[in-house]
Amino acid sequence: MATELFEKHRGRLEQAVAAIEQRGYWTPFAEMPSPKIYGEGANDAGKAAYEARLGQPFDLHQPGAGPAVGHEVSPFGPALGIRYPSSDLDALIGAAGNAAASWRAAGPEAWVGVSLEILARLNQRSFEIAYAVMHTTGQAFMMAFQAGGPHAQDRGLEAVAYAWREMSRIPKTAVWEKPQGKNPPLKMEKRFTIAPRGLALVIGCCTFPTWNGYPGLFASLATGNAVLVKPHPAVILPLAITVEIARQVLAEAGFDANVVTLVAHAAGDDTPQRLALRPEIKIIDFTGSPAHGEWLERNARQAQVYTEKAGVNSVVVDSTADFAGLARNLAFSLALYSGQMCTAPQNIFIPREGIATAEGHLSFEQAAGGLAQAVAKLLGDTARAVEILGAIQNPEILARLEQARRAPAEKILLDSETLAHPQFPEARVRTPLLLRARPGEEADFLREVFGPVAFVIATDSTRQSLELAGRGARDHGALTFAVYSTDAAVIEQARGIAAEAGVSLSENLTGAVFVNQSAAFSDFHGTGANPAANAALTDSAFVASRFRVAQSRAHVA
Amino acid sequence: MATELFEKHRGRLEQAVAAIEQRGYWTPFAEMPSPKIYGEGANDAGKAAYEARLGQPFDLHQPGAGPAVGHEVSPFGPALGIRYPSSDLDALIGAAGNAAASWRAAGPEAWVGVSLEILARLNQRSFEIAYAVMHTTGQAFMMAFQAGGPHAQDRGLEAVAYAWREMSRIPKTAVWEKPQGKNPPLKMEKRFTIAPRGLALVIGCCTFPTWNGYPGLFASLATGNAVLVKPHPAVILPLAITVEIARQVLAEAGFDANVVTLVAHAAGDDTPQRLALRPEIKIIDFTGSPAHGEWLERNARQAQVYTEKAGVNSVVVDSTADFAGLARNLAFSLALYSGQMCTAPQNIFIPREGIATAEGHLSFEQAAGGLAQAVAKLLGDTARAVEILGAIQNPEILARLEQARRAPAEKILLDSETLAHPQFPEARVRTPLLLRARPGEEADFLREVFGPVAFVIATDSTRQSLELAGRGARDHGALTFAVYSTDAAVIEQARGIAAEAGVSLSENLTGAVFVNQSAAFSDFHGTGANPAANAALTDSAFVASRFRVAQSRAHVA
Repeated sequence: MATELFEKHRGRLEQAVAAIEQRGYWTPFAEMPSPKIYGEGANDAGKAAYEARLGQPFDLHQPGAGPAVGHEVSPFGPALGIRYPSSDLDALIGAAGNAAASWRAAGPEAWVGVSLEILARLNQRSFEIAYAVMHTTGQAFMMAFQAGGPHAQDRGLEAVAYAWREMSRIPKTAVWEKPQGKNPPLKMEKRFTIAPRGLALVIGCCTFPTWNGYPGLFASLATGNAVLVKPHPAVILPLAITVEIARQVLAEAGFDANVVTLVAHAAGDDTPQRLALRPEIKIIDFTGSPAHGEWLERNARQAQVYTEKAGVNSVVVDSTADFAGLARNLAFSLALYSGQMCTAPQNIFIPREGIATAEGHLSFEQAAGGLAQAVAKLLGDTARAVEILGAIQNPEILARLEQARRAPAEKILLDSETLAHPQFPEARVRTPLLLRARPGEEADFLREVFGPVAFVIATDSTRQSLELAGRGARDHGALTFAVYSTDAAVIEQARGIAAEAGVSLSENLTGAVFVNQSAAFSDFHGTGANPAANAALTDSAFVASRFRVAQSRAHVA
Repeated sequence: MATELFEKHRGRLEQAVAAIEQRGYWTPFAEMPSPKIYGEGANDAGKAAYEARLGQPFDLHQPGAGPAVGHEVSPFGPALGIRYPSSDLDALIGAAGNAAASWRAAGPEAWVGVSLEILARLNQRSFEIAYAVMHTTGQAFMMAFQAGGPHAQDRGLEAVAYAWREMSRIPKTAVWEKPQGKNPPLKMEKRFTIAPRGLALVIGCCTFPTWNGYPGLFASLATGNAVLVKPHPAVILPLAITVEIARQVLAEAGFDANVVTLVAHAAGDDTPQRLALRPEIKIIDFTGSPAHGEWLERNARQAQVYTEKAGVNSVVVDSTADFAGLARNLAFSLALYSGQMCTAPQNIFIPREGIATAEGHLSFEQAAGGLAQAVAKLLGDTARAVEILGAIQNPEILARLEQARRAPAEKILLDSETLAHPQFPEARVRTPLLLRARPGEEADFLREVFGPVAFVIATDSTRQSLELAGRGARDHGALTFAVYSTDAAVIEQARGIAAEAGVSLSENLTGAVFVNQSAAFSDFHGTGANPAANAALTDSAFVASRFRVAQSRAHVA
């Protein structure tokens, strides 16, 4: 059965492996929520499936089920009312360990075949998952569908492709024949077995539970490990549905469903720490705060730990042939999901002398003002604005925004506004706050201010802009970096800084590609070379240590 | 120039990449110290080159040279009298950092081309290095030549092949073209740059300085890192010659020679600890004691740390079709370099009921006695024996042996003897000590007793033998595991235990392949899945984290 799944998806796997080597555009998962692709009624059915979950217990039939937990509240208003069983960790880890033993024996084709089938089923459930993502993270529907569905599935498939590429290059057997001069050669047969690490833990975040969770989940699963999935206590449903689908596929393929399990827990309890330090846990994938990520890196010494934490993303504006395009592009990047993306720009550096544009010189005030106007214009129509902004995921982000708004009036370039969502009157919808800053105020802007707050910083020169952007990435981490310049030398300097600080550079984005978007199979997300992340999504290093090779050898005639 | 080196060695590189995927027998470096291969007079010239080093300062013209250090004494007798400059760490790390900046910019072809040229030069210097290895480690000449020369070069080349394979799979540029329905596609050009980690540190051991040192050295160098090589203070010369050759090649190719530097230091000072914790050091390769290795894993948190420590290697004897071959084979494995190999067997488990052989049943005493006789016979001729045993590397090993010899008389299956080396009267030559043991005495045998001490353990059954071998590997680490059985079920059980404990299994070795030998390009050395090592020589995981990928992207028309 598992081998049939591998054969069923072999073509897709081969395409995915080719894609990670060519790094052009490729995906098998359509990003448009179109009935032509997903079927007539797919949206209604997905919405109904989501709504049927509300107020109900979510039972995965896992061992060690304890008292129910779960207090998810939609950033758009209503409480979800879904109750998940908590888990007795001893029972759950014991069951996962038992499941891991038979899973381990199944071998790479089975691990990959099952993983690919799970991804295909997830794709079919993209609408249901989109509503789950929307009403837990606060993403507007289109983003919830794309980033939570097909784009997350892409990242999962990418991890499977890397895992398969590494495993498939280790032959199952080899004949070693060493010449012995005039004597017969020494001849041995060698057998190589992929040995998974054991149990893997995925720790989900509250903004992109599937997009950030699938790479680790599928990298570990496809290399033969059993996976415990621990969602953020405020954003359980998207990963609970994912685990449910994984367990169904495993069971159908004849495996113990406990190869993939969910660990739901109450906010603020010590489940994450207890779980992360268990000796059985050999791999941890984490997305979340720097404090928690660093704690894991320091303390979970028994495990391979892959973290994505946070950073300070910069934009350096030097000159442009298309200021209107620049302003539109950056405005969208600032507004998208209210800046609640680890890739969203935070610091926009503009020389205080101003910039050269195709329409002539713009002063700093003109450039900064032009950007503020573009944000205001983009969000001028509330019905359209809420589909870009989504809602603020949690009250802490709102509090941070309100704190930032208390800056002196002359610092406020564009104030944040509260919008009334046409469908969801209780939704926390805010437009971005743009603050002026200058060198010397690094304590304000060279730290992550997660959410709809950005700084427009008047620098002495583009040289200083680049220096501050590089310093921010090196010292505080960064996942993205954008530069606008018509000067090839400035672009070259930005490339050097980006490579040295380990941050992805986007040059002169004035159209429909945004600095905060990264495309699976083509863009590496993170590098592991600055404090924002110790790993990249996805490269060989992300998968190669999730398994080991055991060998045996014997003489043959 | 560096590109020329890449082209010069491209054929060898391609063969090496093919070899690591096929894992059959392959090497470009001849293991026989034959004048037909290495040239008439190569041995004499190498010996003369070695002897010309004795009593002289060894000057590498490195920055920050301080007071001379070095008190190497040959385990065969004479002091080497070579004085190496110590290093001011700030000056040396500063110079290495400067060198790293230009090295980084040279790119993968240059890194790999230079690495391959260094390996080719090392091969030409195999005789000189052999005498250096012999008179620092105590290996007999043939082993010093093979393991210290061509086999070490094989392991270095293997690491370069893995590094190249990973780097070459990342395209330098890609065009990403995303369809936009009826509109023109979004089209971007992306550039991917290999970003080395920074400075790498190789910490050498006192028994196989080149064989264990080259994988890390070449894996780091070929991925664009600058490398500081810190030999064991008692075994400096082999790595000093290696560094000298590397610096010559680098300078000839137009690079700063400080891309590779030597850190010689006095025994017992804190140079290794200070160096390992420097923030500039991003990669550490270590071979040595568990205590030092674990200290690095715990404390050098700023670096990727690859360790090979120690373990308890087991042999399970269940039954055999060729007892004489078994005994000869194991006797050689026990005697080779006086058991001073991390792969040497330590615990030989035999059921106390005895074993089935082609010649009928042998009691435990007959089997154990047969093994002891085979050791005695192998080493009966002193002139031949010293060429197998070599010399004891250091007095601590000798002290441990003498301590073990104080066991009660009934425990001593074969006593260790002192042999007089025909050429080197001061050489520390000892034959192996074989001790009887039994379950319940795990405190004696389930810990590493490095050197010419082995235990022959009378177990209740082969099942118990396998259980103890597995436990030893899991709890105390192991690099090798041998099983002798004519029963396919026992072989299958041993394979299962080996895979689960992450140890390489050799089955029924009765000929000219020995459990303590592993062949580059074919055998993985270590798995990283038990306490003996956290990495394998060599797999993708050993190279994939030594660099990162930085990218930039821009729209194209």
